[in-house]
Amino acid sequence: MTVCWIDGVPAEALSVKDRGLAYGDGFFETIRVKAATPLLFERHLQRLALGARRLALPLDLAQIESECRAFAAQMGEGVMKLIVTRGDGQRGYAPAADAQSRRILQGSPLPLYPKTNAEHGIRLFACRTRLAEQPLLAGLKHLNRLEQVIARSEWHDTEHAEGLMRDTSGRLVEAVSSNLFLVKAGVLLTPDLSRCGVAGVMRAELLAMAEQGNMPARALDLQMSDLQKADEVFVCNSVYGIWPVLGVERLNWPVGPVTRKLQNLVRGLLDI
Amino acid sequence: MTVCWIDGVPAEALSVKDRGLAYGDGFFETIRVKAATPLLFERHLQRLALGARRLALPLDLAQIESECRAFAAQMGEGVMKLIVTRGDGQRGYAPAADAQSRRILQGSPLPLYPKTNAEHGIRLFACRTRLAEQPLLAGLKHLNRLEQVIARSEWHDTEHAEGLMRDTSGRLVEAVSSNLFLVKAGVLLTPDLSRCGVAGVMRAELLAMAEQGNMPARALDLQMSDLQKADEVFVCNSVYGIWPVLGVERLNWPVGPVTRKLQNLVRGLLDI
Repeated sequence: MTVCWIDGVPAEALSVKDRGLAYGDGFFETIRVKAATPLLFERHLQRLALGARRLALPLDLAQIESECRAFAAQMGEGVMKLIVTRGDGQRGYAPAADAQSRRILQGSPLPLYPKTNAEHGIRLFACRTRLAEQPLLAGLKHLNRLEQVIARSEWHDTEHAEGLMRDTSGRLVEAVSSNLFLVKAGVLLTPDLSRCGVAGVMRAELLAMAEQGNMPARALDLQMSDLQKADEVFVCNSVYGIWPVLGVERLNWPVGPVTRKLQNLVRGLLDI
Repeated sequence: MTVCWIDGVPAEALSVKDRGLAYGDGFFETIRVKAATPLLFERHLQRLALGARRLALPLDLAQIESECRAFAAQMGEGVMKLIVTRGDGQRGYAPAADAQSRRILQGSPLPLYPKTNAEHGIRLFACRTRLAEQPLLAGLKHLNRLEQVIARSEWHDTEHAEGLMRDTSGRLVEAVSSNLFLVKAGVLLTPDLSRCGVAGVMRAELLAMAEQGNMPARALDLQMSDLQKADEVFVCNSVYGIWPVLGVERLNWPVGPVTRKLQNLVRGLLDI
């Protein structure tokens, strides 16, 4: 199995002039591959296209789609990471008018998460690292991820499978590599991501599922006090699906019926 | 002339697993080289060491110093860009306990700035892009530079040699690739950089020069109203030295005596 392609060709090494390295000038998508097929692929491509428009990064979406499908076909199963950068640059921040985007695909086996994460739930570490509020980059899965690196360095134990992140104003935002959902009186709540945070593919899928299933759902500003009042809490991403959250610091929640219902729906989607 | 070294060895290509690409997990320094010597080199190394401590990135400073000196010796003259990353990573944000930093050195000729920039001054473009406030990363020259990429994309004319950047609260911070100084009643003023911005090597050098020369100087919070009241304005960095600022939007300043005095001192430093 070839584990890496650059611009559609097997390769292991990248030009040192790539603007992805120089400035984090690009995006990535972490895509679950099952039975030689990229899962939730349309949503991944949509988010990538949105980011590229916002940052005026030229993108051939049809080419990316066909490369990803070919890569997934030879991978079979696992996780496919797609990085798209603005390609090589000269000195200075100004992008060249004729910049060409570069595609990097890397395959890896599905991470070996403990089965108990999905079955019995996890605890969140309460990260001290706060996310800065930058509406220009909010929602995008861009390559500027130092805040996540710092946050993930805050704990080393295996007790905490994820970390809760707030913004510099104290609002709830997300978990380090997942999105956050609360259930209160049968309503699905998730933090608004217009100031910071990554608008996850699984988050979008769950919001769409809720709409189709006539389950009330809202994206809005949420505080720690909302977490205290929540009936159920869970985190999600497009690789592992949904993990119920049992607690963070002194707060505790049961694994509730809404979480279990959504987990069942997601199991069908991810075929897990 | 070899234009690129990776970990001390001539090379043009980098592992796709490098965390500098994946997350912008690293730092860079842009160092002026004159007569085969890196200029203001101690200050560049100091800033790099500070960033590495703040992000717990392992660093062999003696090795970096000797590689940079050797690279500068064979370059002779120009600009040497040093990138230090956390090296290769596996999936996920958590840095490996045994992470080894990687050094990338790239040489390029001195940029051909118009001579009038230093002699007669420049105008600043007033960027709409605001810098997010993130104290954990403030001051560091890290690889998460999308805000600068977006800001530098705001103008394409040659009328504006630099862009003025404010933070999301409206405070003055810096220029896109330079630091900002104001002179008011003989006092040198520069924005405090504890929330965002890059603490430039030339900025540090000018503050030290002011102290040695008994010129009053302060780093503090500054607003657009301070710019309106300034007697002189200039920008600086370690490659071009000092450029007087003639204006931004409707504001205009003369090229004043403090700017000229500091330019003369910096010319000696950079040997320009």
